[in-house]
Amino acid sequence: MVKAAVIGGSGYTGLELLRLLAAHPRVEVVAVTSRQSLGVPVRRVFPSLTGAYDLTYVGPDDRVLDEADLAITCLPHKAAQDTVRARREAGQRVLDLSADFRFRDITAYEAHYCAHAYPEMSQTAVYGLPELYRAEIAEADLVGCPGCYPTSSLLPLAPLLKAGLIETEGLIINAASGASGAGRGASVPTLLSEAGEDFKAYKVNSHRHQPEIEQELSAAAGENVRVIFQPHLVPMSRGMLATIYARPKTTEDRIRECLTETYADSPMVHVLDPGEWPRTMAVRGSNTCQINLALDERTGTLILLSAIDNLVKGASGQVVQCLNLMAGFEETAGLPLVGLFP
Amino acid sequence: MVKAAVIGGSGYTGLELLRLLAAHPRVEVVAVTSRQSLGVPVRRVFPSLTGAYDLTYVGPDDRVLDEADLAITCLPHKAAQDTVRARREAGQRVLDLSADFRFRDITAYEAHYCAHAYPEMSQTAVYGLPELYRAEIAEADLVGCPGCYPTSSLLPLAPLLKAGLIETEGLIINAASGASGAGRGASVPTLLSEAGEDFKAYKVNSHRHQPEIEQELSAAAGENVRVIFQPHLVPMSRGMLATIYARPKTTEDRIRECLTETYADSPMVHVLDPGEWPRTMAVRGSNTCQINLALDERTGTLILLSAIDNLVKGASGQVVQCLNLMAGFEETAGLPLVGLFP
Amino acid sequence: MVKAAVIGGSGYTGLELLRLLAAHPRVEVVAVTSRQSLGVPVRRVFPSLTGAYDLTYVGPDDRVLDEADLAITCLPHKAAQDTVRARREAGQRVLDLSADFRFRDITAYEAHYCAHAYPEMSQTAVYGLPELYRAEIAEADLVGCPGCYPTSSLLPLAPLLKAGLIETEGLIINAASGASGAGRGASVPTLLSEAGEDFKAYKVNSHRHQPEIEQELSAAAGENVRVIFQPHLVPMSRGMLATIYARPKTTEDRIRECLTETYADSPMVHVLDPGEWPRTMAVRGSNTCQINLALDERTGTLILLSAIDNLVKGASGQVVQCLNLMAGFEETAGLPLVGLFP
Amino acid sequence: MVKAAVIGGSGYTGLELLRLLAAHPRVEVVAVTSRQSLGVPVRRVFPSLTGAYDLTYVGPDDRVLDEADLAITCLPHKAAQDTVRARREAGQRVLDLSADFRFRDITAYEAHYCAHAYPEMSQTAVYGLPELYRAEIAEADLVGCPGCYPTSSLLPLAPLLKAGLIETEGLIINAASGASGAGRGASVPTLLSEAGEDFKAYKVNSHRHQPEIEQELSAAAGENVRVIFQPHLVPMSRGMLATIYARPKTTEDRIRECLTETYADSPMVHVLDPGEWPRTMAVRGSNTCQINLALDERTGTLILLSAIDNLVKGASGQVVQCLNLMAGFEETAGLPLVGLFP
Repeated sequence: MVKAAVIGGSGYTGLELLRLLAAHPRVEVVAVTSRQSLGVPVRRVFPSLTGAYDLTYVGPDDRVLDEADLAITCLPHKAAQDTVRARREAGQRVLDLSADFRFRDITAYEAHYCAHAYPEMSQTAVYGLPELYRAEIAEADLVGCPGCYPTSSLLPLAPLLKAGLIETEGLIINAASGASGAGRGASVPTLLSEAGEDFKAYKVNSHRHQPEIEQELSAAAGENVRVIFQPHLVPMSRGMLATIYARPKTTEDRIRECLTETYADSPMVHVLDPGEWPRTMAVRGSNTCQINLALDERTGTLILLSAIDNLVKGASGQVVQCLNLMAGFEETAGLPLVGLFP
Repeated sequence: MVKAAVIGGSGYTGLELLRLLAAHPRVEVVAVTSRQSLGVPVRRVFPSLTGAYDLTYVGPDDRVLDEADLAITCLPHKAAQDTVRARREAGQRVLDLSADFRFRDITAYEAHYCAHAYPEMSQTAVYGLPELYRAEIAEADLVGCPGCYPTSSLLPLAPLLKAGLIETEGLIINAASGASGAGRGASVPTLLSEAGEDFKAYKVNSHRHQPEIEQELSAAAGENVRVIFQPHLVPMSRGMLATIYARPKTTEDRIRECLTETYADSPMVHVLDPGEWPRTMAVRGSNTCQINLALDERTGTLILLSAIDNLVKGASGQVVQCLNLMAGFEETAGLPLVGLFP
Repeated sequence: MVKAAVIGGSGYTGLELLRLLAAHPRVEVVAVTSRQSLGVPVRRVFPSLTGAYDLTYVGPDDRVLDEADLAITCLPHKAAQDTVRARREAGQRVLDLSADFRFRDITAYEAHYCAHAYPEMSQTAVYGLPELYRAEIAEADLVGCPGCYPTSSLLPLAPLLKAGLIETEGLIINAASGASGAGRGASVPTLLSEAGEDFKAYKVNSHRHQPEIEQELSAAAGENVRVIFQPHLVPMSRGMLATIYARPKTTEDRIRECLTETYADSPMVHVLDPGEWPRTMAVRGSNTCQINLALDERTGTLILLSAIDNLVKGASGQVVQCLNLMAGFEETAGLPLVGLFP
Repeated sequence: MVKAAVIGGSGYTGLELLRLLAAHPRVEVVAVTSRQSLGVPVRRVFPSLTGAYDLTYVGPDDRVLDEADLAITCLPHKAAQDTVRARREAGQRVLDLSADFRFRDITAYEAHYCAHAYPEMSQTAVYGLPELYRAEIAEADLVGCPGCYPTSSLLPLAPLLKAGLIETEGLIINAASGASGAGRGASVPTLLSEAGEDFKAYKVNSHRHQPEIEQELSAAAGENVRVIFQPHLVPMSRGMLATIYARPKTTEDRIRECLTETYADSPMVHVLDPGEWPRTMAVRGSNTCQINLALDERTGTLILLSAIDNLVKGASGQVVQCLNLMAGFEETAGLPLVGLFP
């Protein structure tokens, strides 16, 4: 059994991690931290955990954390920096869910987030997208796991750019997320009365996931790639769909073949049959990504679609998948392959 | 034109009042107040008002308030007390949406809310349910309008108790409300991610609308009436359904007849044909109430159902209906009779 | 009073028309037809109409139709052809909500829909988008009203193409609709259990609104315009948002100015202030369209956003707006300016 | 490995069974039948199964069914009768999800459903509620599993009636279900546009789960018990909440103690701490039931609340739990203990 500590366990990614690890045959959660719910049983904060955990939230400096083999940090960016550093200094391998250790280019990070206290740690951390960095993750001591927007964008695009099958210019990522992506903080815009029965674009022309996506697409393409990235808020809790417009350099068949071959050995990424389209409910609660594509010959435009659950493959499931690689477990251990439909 | 001031106009009842008054042929809104949005255009806070109002929020003591013939207060209980008093002293007739002027028994108010600074004002205010107090409202200077739970409970029950057609004991009001009933404050329990796709009871055994409902039912029955009142939260924005269990003293036909006759001249209350059941979407956005009933002969239980829109007939539409009576307008002036379906 | 007949009144556009006309001061509905609900009171099919209409559905050939000054047809395409012809031959002016009389190029219609029995009627009908064809509609005897996808696409794009401010190539319309756009027919994909909590693209690469949009954009540009049009299904009942990507030929200010000036005299189209973004709930239930834009200088991409209620400005409200022009009424008569929020 | 055949696998209970069995360590699905989807891969009908099953639907008489050790029938009532009989004659143990084998009193079954061809089979089948009939299920060859309404009603009520802690008269079960309870058939009332943003009672005074509930409550009480059972439809996919009103014969503490002790060894039923209320989202996707209670001393009324997922503990999870008992597996094998929250 690998002993894991969950740091920052009173938000949705922490909860989702606890849900997944409750069913993991080879991981034991030894501690869950929360400043605001210190001393409260986790099942009191999250009634869905009733019967599954007897844990009570501890503080971020509790000694019990040292019993863990591995720490998973579910903190906001900036707050994660010192905590990750401390866990590494305690000799633990760390999986981080914030943006703090995803950037190789610290300038880009600092332009969109805040100052970074440990730039060299970020530069040498492994980007936690298993399908792109499987071998590196297995050896890593520090993994910065991408969130939902980069994951749903990179899985369909990176292989095509790497293979040179689409232009590096003119990429448009039109993405849509359920409200759980905004987290569990009290706020007016994500009230049921405000966000239910509403559909809207947000952060128009200013979303900070753009540089992270461009970092990885540029690495895949071997040259500078720029994208338009426009997120939308969908009146549902979970799910993310990316509708991507690109300019193809080859046929639809060749593009499909590239994706199918790339993910032939990835048990969590499914390139669907022609005519079957990704939908968020088909992956809700599972750690899978569904992808498909169509080429509009009239205008010479490739439409790529990818669907994930923002809290699973877009967050906590991705962490567990990385953990499995790091610990030498089967990649799918403890991860649901079948989502909750309906 | 009647000139109206809306006091406390940055919550949902204030917004709904502005929506309704925008279409009212004989009322002009001369001022809208908000402490937190002072100086902000109303359309900035509520984009649905774009094009309909050029008003900017003023403070609660702004002189422009004095231009109004009539004030409508959309403040929380307690906060309403002084404001209503001030408006009355300024010589304006007042319609209040809080609980502060609905109680004739100040002890009951103070047991469930807080201390009351002006008990005599509450005792002499008119209870603003037009179907029960039409004549009194027309003459009133101060009207305390009931909210959604009392409205949906009283409309089906009061006539039957008044006519002595049901027992005064054993009344169970099982009610359910959309999330807008919780208001526009930032809170975790009413986030889309928490309240969407969830159904639950709340305030089990402790809801403070019980004494208000009992006040009016006792008045109708001419004797002391006690009820069980259990609210639930429905994963939708608007709407309220009351499912009421009572013990009949007569036949289903006689009960139906009583309700039909009682509301024959009430253009906003519809007793449906047998077999047609009230549903919240049928009254969403309208000021109507739909009622129906069935008698289970096996167990001798009467089931009464009533549906309203909690923000219209359960709040701001009720205010406009009262205003119409006070101003001598047609009772339905400016009020939508047809809801938004789907 | 104008006397109107609603033909095909048992679907959502028919219901919405009845909702709007119930509040119209100068239109009386003299007949509503439905083959499947013949002889049934309209309030039985649509309980939200209880108390507003005493009408009972009549058949499509009922003599009472002849009493109308004007007919509004809410039938599916193809079925509308003969009915519109019959109403015109009966001397009535006709507003049609199907695609049957929107195409000047019958080849395009027949390629995407079916054979057309009266091509010359379609070629000479007026395209019922008041903001583009106000004068022509006022004089028209036959108006083919555009639906939700064309309306939300054309209002932001047509003025910019007409003024030559954007390129005619590379237009991408990424649109999203609530489920009521699929109509009221029983079907598995639009069940609450299937479409609630789901977000997906549909009709990938094959949506038939593309040629209609291109017809009007080409007319505006004075040259051939091609677009990518990709619709999505949002888990809500009402609302449509178009997120449009274009290549600007000028500055953001100049583009904003063009739209603002174009719609200065259009009471139902609102170009929002910079930083205020259209959202579907802000126009839900109203006949308005909200538009805004942003220019991404890094990639040279213009993002245009427009929101409407698919059943109002995208269907039945548009019809009433056209009717108002035809009858010489105020353009906004009977039309809600403030939507249902929340 | 136990080999299981799923008969009637194209509805929601069949899908949910496949989801659960995909994660079961000791059950293999050897066949799934569907008349309407014969020859179609299951992942084509249910895209959430992509990557988990390579099965293709077979017909109800396919020889591959004989390879199973055990058959699970997910057919509508009446249709299940012959199929269950055939599977029993083929020597297979059978778990049935319809009402066909839940009634010991065939008269009651025939009064509410239809004629029964094999009354003796129903009379001797075991009622598949593990918490009440654990030992009998372990030995059974034919189990008739209760659906969601009986399960959520019986779990809180049966122990209290058995212990004589509540009156047998005056029981009111006010229940509410998500739309998936209505199944996957195309229908207008469960369209997203009709059932979303709506709350209503249905089958007022006529729901056929009443006799089944009364059968089991009477068995628990040792005398005749009658209930009022009133279901409601909630605008969500999954989940069921029962709000039950009863007349207590003892204290709240004693009642709580009875429930807590009854379910001390039931890993799937959780009696919550005082003040923690059941909610459907806390059990969504899991096989658990959450129960709590409050006693209103003013009126002498006990309020019991219970929440389940209608498709899991209320259907397919219950089947797997029974299967585990029959096969001698751990009762929770393959069953999720933690639901999907949010």
